[in-house]
Amino acid sequence: MIKKEREQVFRDPIHGYITVSYEIITEIIDTQVFQRLRRIRQLSGVSMVYHGAEHSRFSHSLGVYHNANRFLEVPDLRNTLTEREKLLFLSAALLHDVGHGPYSHAFEDIFGVDHEKIGARIIVENKELRNVLNKVDADFALDIASIILKQGKFPLLEQLISSQLDVDRLDYLLRDAYFTGTAYGNIDIDRLIRVMRIKNGQVVFKVSGIHAIENYLISRYHMYWQVYYHNVSRAYEVILEKTYLRIKDLLEEGYKFKADVSALKEVINNPNNLDYYVLIDDFYINGLLASFLNAKDEILKTLSSDFLNRNIWGYLDVNSKNEEKISEIKNNMSDTERRYFTESRTVYQSTYKDEATKLGDKIYILLEDGSVKTLFEESKMIESLSQSGSKLDLKFFYRKKWKNRYM
Amino acid sequence: MIKKEREQVFRDPIHGYITVSYEIITEIIDTQVFQRLRRIRQLSGVSMVYHGAEHSRFSHSLGVYHNANRFLEVPDLRNTLTEREKLLFLSAALLHDVGHGPYSHAFEDIFGVDHEKIGARIIVENKELRNVLNKVDADFALDIASIILKQGKFPLLEQLISSQLDVDRLDYLLRDAYFTGTAYGNIDIDRLIRVMRIKNGQVVFKVSGIHAIENYLISRYHMYWQVYYHNVSRAYEVILEKTYLRIKDLLEEGYKFKADVSALKEVINNPNNLDYYVLIDDFYINGLLASFLNAKDEILKTLSSDFLNRNIWGYLDVNSKNEEKISEIKNNMSDTERRYFTESRTVYQSTYKDEATKLGDKIYILLEDGSVKTLFEESKMIESLSQSGSKLDLKFFYRKKWKNRYM
Amino acid sequence: MIKKEREQVFRDPIHGYITVSYEIITEIIDTQVFQRLRRIRQLSGVSMVYHGAEHSRFSHSLGVYHNANRFLEVPDLRNTLTEREKLLFLSAALLHDVGHGPYSHAFEDIFGVDHEKIGARIIVENKELRNVLNKVDADFALDIASIILKQGKFPLLEQLISSQLDVDRLDYLLRDAYFTGTAYGNIDIDRLIRVMRIKNGQVVFKVSGIHAIENYLISRYHMYWQVYYHNVSRAYEVILEKTYLRIKDLLEEGYKFKADVSALKEVINNPNNLDYYVLIDDFYINGLLASFLNAKDEILKTLSSDFLNRNIWGYLDVNSKNEEKISEIKNNMSDTERRYFTESRTVYQSTYKDEATKLGDKIYILLEDGSVKTLFEESKMIESLSQSGSKLDLKFFYRKKWKNRYM
Amino acid sequence: MIKKEREQVFRDPIHGYITVSYEIITEIIDTQVFQRLRRIRQLSGVSMVYHGAEHSRFSHSLGVYHNANRFLEVPDLRNTLTEREKLLFLSAALLHDVGHGPYSHAFEDIFGVDHEKIGARIIVENKELRNVLNKVDADFALDIASIILKQGKFPLLEQLISSQLDVDRLDYLLRDAYFTGTAYGNIDIDRLIRVMRIKNGQVVFKVSGIHAIENYLISRYHMYWQVYYHNVSRAYEVILEKTYLRIKDLLEEGYKFKADVSALKEVINNPNNLDYYVLIDDFYINGLLASFLNAKDEILKTLSSDFLNRNIWGYLDVNSKNEEKISEIKNNMSDTERRYFTESRTVYQSTYKDEATKLGDKIYILLEDGSVKTLFEESKMIESLSQSGSKLDLKFFYRKKWKNRYM
Repeated sequence: MIKKEREQVFRDPIHGYITVSYEIITEIIDTQVFQRLRRIRQLSGVSMVYHGAEHSRFSHSLGVYHNANRFLEVPDLRNTLTEREKLLFLSAALLHDVGHGPYSHAFEDIFGVDHEKIGARIIVENKELRNVLNKVDADFALDIASIILKQGKFPLLEQLISSQLDVDRLDYLLRDAYFTGTAYGNIDIDRLIRVMRIKNGQVVFKVSGIHAIENYLISRYHMYWQVYYHNVSRAYEVILEKTYLRIKDLLEEGYKFKADVSALKEVINNPNNLDYYVLIDDFYINGLLASFLNAKDEILKTLSSDFLNRNIWGYLDVNSKNEEKISEIKNNMSDTERRYFTESRTVYQSTYKDEATKLGDKIYILLEDGSVKTLFEESKMIESLSQSGSKLDLKFFYRKKWKNRYM
Repeated sequence: MIKKEREQVFRDPIHGYITVSYEIITEIIDTQVFQRLRRIRQLSGVSMVYHGAEHSRFSHSLGVYHNANRFLEVPDLRNTLTEREKLLFLSAALLHDVGHGPYSHAFEDIFGVDHEKIGARIIVENKELRNVLNKVDADFALDIASIILKQGKFPLLEQLISSQLDVDRLDYLLRDAYFTGTAYGNIDIDRLIRVMRIKNGQVVFKVSGIHAIENYLISRYHMYWQVYYHNVSRAYEVILEKTYLRIKDLLEEGYKFKADVSALKEVINNPNNLDYYVLIDDFYINGLLASFLNAKDEILKTLSSDFLNRNIWGYLDVNSKNEEKISEIKNNMSDTERRYFTESRTVYQSTYKDEATKLGDKIYILLEDGSVKTLFEESKMIESLSQSGSKLDLKFFYRKKWKNRYM
Repeated sequence: MIKKEREQVFRDPIHGYITVSYEIITEIIDTQVFQRLRRIRQLSGVSMVYHGAEHSRFSHSLGVYHNANRFLEVPDLRNTLTEREKLLFLSAALLHDVGHGPYSHAFEDIFGVDHEKIGARIIVENKELRNVLNKVDADFALDIASIILKQGKFPLLEQLISSQLDVDRLDYLLRDAYFTGTAYGNIDIDRLIRVMRIKNGQVVFKVSGIHAIENYLISRYHMYWQVYYHNVSRAYEVILEKTYLRIKDLLEEGYKFKADVSALKEVINNPNNLDYYVLIDDFYINGLLASFLNAKDEILKTLSSDFLNRNIWGYLDVNSKNEEKISEIKNNMSDTERRYFTESRTVYQSTYKDEATKLGDKIYILLEDGSVKTLFEESKMIESLSQSGSKLDLKFFYRKKWKNRYM
Repeated sequence: MIKKEREQVFRDPIHGYITVSYEIITEIIDTQVFQRLRRIRQLSGVSMVYHGAEHSRFSHSLGVYHNANRFLEVPDLRNTLTEREKLLFLSAALLHDVGHGPYSHAFEDIFGVDHEKIGARIIVENKELRNVLNKVDADFALDIASIILKQGKFPLLEQLISSQLDVDRLDYLLRDAYFTGTAYGNIDIDRLIRVMRIKNGQVVFKVSGIHAIENYLISRYHMYWQVYYHNVSRAYEVILEKTYLRIKDLLEEGYKFKADVSALKEVINNPNNLDYYVLIDDFYINGLLASFLNAKDEILKTLSSDFLNRNIWGYLDVNSKNEEKISEIKNNMSDTERRYFTESRTVYQSTYKDEATKLGDKIYILLEDGSVKTLFEESKMIESLSQSGSKLDLKFFYRKKWKNRYM
């Protein structure tokens, strides 16, 4: 764990200076698989609605690393974690999203991959990155992968990386609010860190910080509905899914693409081939989409044009009132059209749930007498919100002007 | 309603430039009774906890005026209010707090005054201000007073000035958050104004803004508990009340004050004498407190010293667990000590209630089909919070080191 | 000039809500050539240094439109411009960057295009856009083009769009500072707008705003050296130029690209073919770069790898001290290597110059007595900075680890 | 130097959390002489122009302490200062303004006191404070006083507390900009701290931070002219001075004040009596001013009314053009009127000077080769600004409506 002679810094619009003091962290950042995250947008199609949201997973990953660094200011962590554990924590924070693909959600749905599993494999199998991680020790890469997969070997670090209130969420809520320009992501991260304690290997928060936690959970809830689940974003997500679907179908049919789809083809045929997987990023997909504007296949042409030229699809709530209308739309389409130009999708978000049984799924509160309770027991506000403050939204998306520019 | 040749501007840290385009508004601001608000802090003793909160009711009043100006951007208001009504709205916004006294809450409690009634009387009876207002017309002052007293003559303007979501709250939550440095007052005022409509003389908000309203109500709730009802602030409030009480008692006893308490004496003897009332501000009271540090009366000396030198009183939750402790504290005091050095106080805040029957006590939501519902009916989150998100807090305050510096 | 029934809004992190009230503006935004700006980053390679700077020319163009809208608050403009001129101003602001290519500076250098001329041609010749603009009148597109080309037909609008202090700079300085997270772009735009006047068809600023102007010029100067001319950004710019150069050379040689470079080929062969030009954006170029990682041509492979995997080139000040070192580097290279792996580049920025003779190149100050002077005559600070505060920087860039990953 | 078991924090709107980890610092803050700073506004009469500027020297002093704490992050300081020196630095930062009086500038002018000398004496002589400081050691108070008086015993600490770029200025520029709402105080404090080094006992800044220094100096210059030297603020300052002058004259005449002016009288008669000096604060003076509204002395009544009710005095540039006008104003007044209702005042501010010979009056730049140069030698911008960017302003202030409300 060699400390750098001179700290490296990144100027970050959210956190100010992000400081790197371990040599190994710089080397991880410099690997090709990490630099690749510059080419994958954090919020996929959200920028079609909030034009400022053009930031990448690279920025976010640095921010998560920075939060991990700040968590290490908490005396209970600073004083008890070993030097190796600290470095493990920082590295896992930095690498937690390394397995993401372009427009990840749609990509995972159609091609059946899981970014956490792929991320863990990249950490272990990518030669350049593994060589860096081996400088700590031979198990270091495996331990990072284990944390990302939540295998229970480092329960405390797993909680810090991924739970109801973790280094990841404390970056993306702030960052996404900043870049979208929305007012909802205002989270008192200083206070949350100040009231954080570790009790029996469990992250707990002093009761004096309960308002900051309530505020965080409600901000999160509002960010979901205002930004992440914005209807127009979801419509773009559907267009992308359909494009992926069409590519997949065409590859199976043996269609001859003018564009170079070899990497995508390799990934579909052999999902274990990480060398091709890492070639696929927003640049690659967007390059394909642009070239599809000249494709012979009309469906591919239409879908990519819809995406690039913002031909927003229509959407309807799926309910008895709209039943007839939805049927009519479907009936006016051919089977092929229905396959590529309609979709039903559900999103769901609660402010907070207490049902969970997995580690890190509950927030715990440290009372003044030293006892620990769940957030539910201490915050009536959150208890009641966990029921009322949940929202499920089922929508039917469909291509509106079916005969337009291209088709 | 003469427009100024050249707009006057105030640079405001919350709203940027505050613009005045009516001559009459400038003249109101220049009156002595309005300038007096510079000498009354917005948050009384809160600055003892949040040291940044040293801003005055003058700043806040300008901010409320500015919000009124922004509300007039709402087409439903801009296009339907007459020029006189607009000016009435702006003037009432500016003057809504003109009746406040120093450390208002404690002052009102002990001296039995009501700042809204006094404010209305100042507007009507203060010569300098009345002369200004008469330039519009002879009824103008009376109409402003009527709005502040909520007499029902201008129901729409009354709602805009004082309701669950009004020009007043939209300034003080933002302003108090800014000056205290807390992260809770982040309210999307732009969005709230954008979704505001008037329907049958009633302020309503389009359903697309419901997240902004939820966020506002929850921010407000958190500001109350984190700032306005902070225990240490409340303790200072009690010390001030006791000081006022001691002054009142001593005046009745005929005690000879070294300091000039004549204005206070006049107000107590003849609450109708506004000429003396307006002389009483923070400067006046703080001047008295400072001079009381040399008073012969030990109680007065002690109380003013406690306030000025931050001798924070103790406080205990009033509950069965503390019953014995509270009794013991009281039993160790003489009757005089109990009168001046102990107090029980309750504060209460809910996120939002739907029980209210007064105009402006409910928030209404305009649905896409044009129908209007209450916020309760549309927001499950707020419905559930109205029950759970209410908090009542009863505390016993007492002077801790009863024998200290002075006594 | 049909006003929209209901204003359209864009949520912008810099300006809050950006409001569109003319139908025609919405239609311009919806054209494919304008949407294309989403796919061209505002700051090309700067994001390799400031990772937050991933915003597009689309965001910037909306911001420039918004500033134009704010300029129309200036009474001298609001009251004298005709409705058509206002719309012309807004449209020109929105479209001023429509001709930009990907990594524009390098692109223009190698392929010999000029984004303003191309922009003007797109406005006049692109069918979809022209159809929209024709809805105003048949000359509308021509007049916008004329403003962008500064042909002198609309001297006032030309100044507002492009001068020392215009709607363009007032967006990009603020926006680039926000996204990079630097503290230098803090400009008091509210004050600048407040003190703006029109005098004999000339933009002037009241002398009371001179500090705001000084601050703006110095902020601009610092943004140039801290951000736009950052050495590492410039190094990336050089890599890109060399990549473009290699593509051009290979096309001339008849090299067979695996990737689809047809659009680029068409543009090189026939720069007048706008249909191909608009297909070329960051997505297209980045797609090419990614595919070049597998190219047979080693130089192409190396250059694209240098760019994508952040293999930063070295740089040296060109001065007598480094003369020998630079010669040595060059001498160790073959002619081919020298052509593709070395470059000398100069950048220059002054705070402000008064030499200029073109319209809009001077800032004019309106004194209290109604006379007009140049900024030089009124601000000693700026006068002296115009000499001292200029900086010329000549650097030699070269590929450092010439034998690396690929070659 | 006992560290606290549990850090104390203050929530600050500028710096976020201000952390106290030494017990002694808490005890200093709790002394009466330090709490007194809550009752002295940082910017005296500036709030009459910028209504937000109502913050106290207490807030500022905490901010200066915080900056000192941040400077201790600089490795050259953290690793070389002894624990006692660190505590000395923090304490001196906290106490540097403890000697300020109300509306300090006017107060010092009329009563012939110097806030730094008085501050040093309070630190040494005030019993409560001295008892606290003695807990470190018997010389601790003397050493703090020595630093504040710049006696050369701790040259490095003196520079850090008071120089061209010190903990004091780095708070007040940021804080005053925040509370006034101006855009000029934007200083990159993070970067300045990052590039700070100590070289031969001298504070130096790495050349890579030169833009941040330039920006700081120019921001400072603009803050002076936009805020501190605002003409209307200066006019209020003059009114206050005249009020102090009238009090002084009346005391000498043996005038019988209704208000309790004993503390002021004692300070005038015996400037060595600190017990009375510390009783005098804004509350005391404002209490007097309010009571003077009922004074028999017409001049006192007039001056206090001018101040409290914002009867702004006129001002004219002192130059040949205005010579006659100024003479006329003076000639229309009696001797008494001239004494109390006219004044000529000069203010001067340069961006930066290099003439100074005192320690800390130059900023030094550390070049990459390890050599040290002055800022002048390295920054052409600052060199030229030191001449041109200086401004001297001589104004004649006079009471305009000499026969008004009261007289």
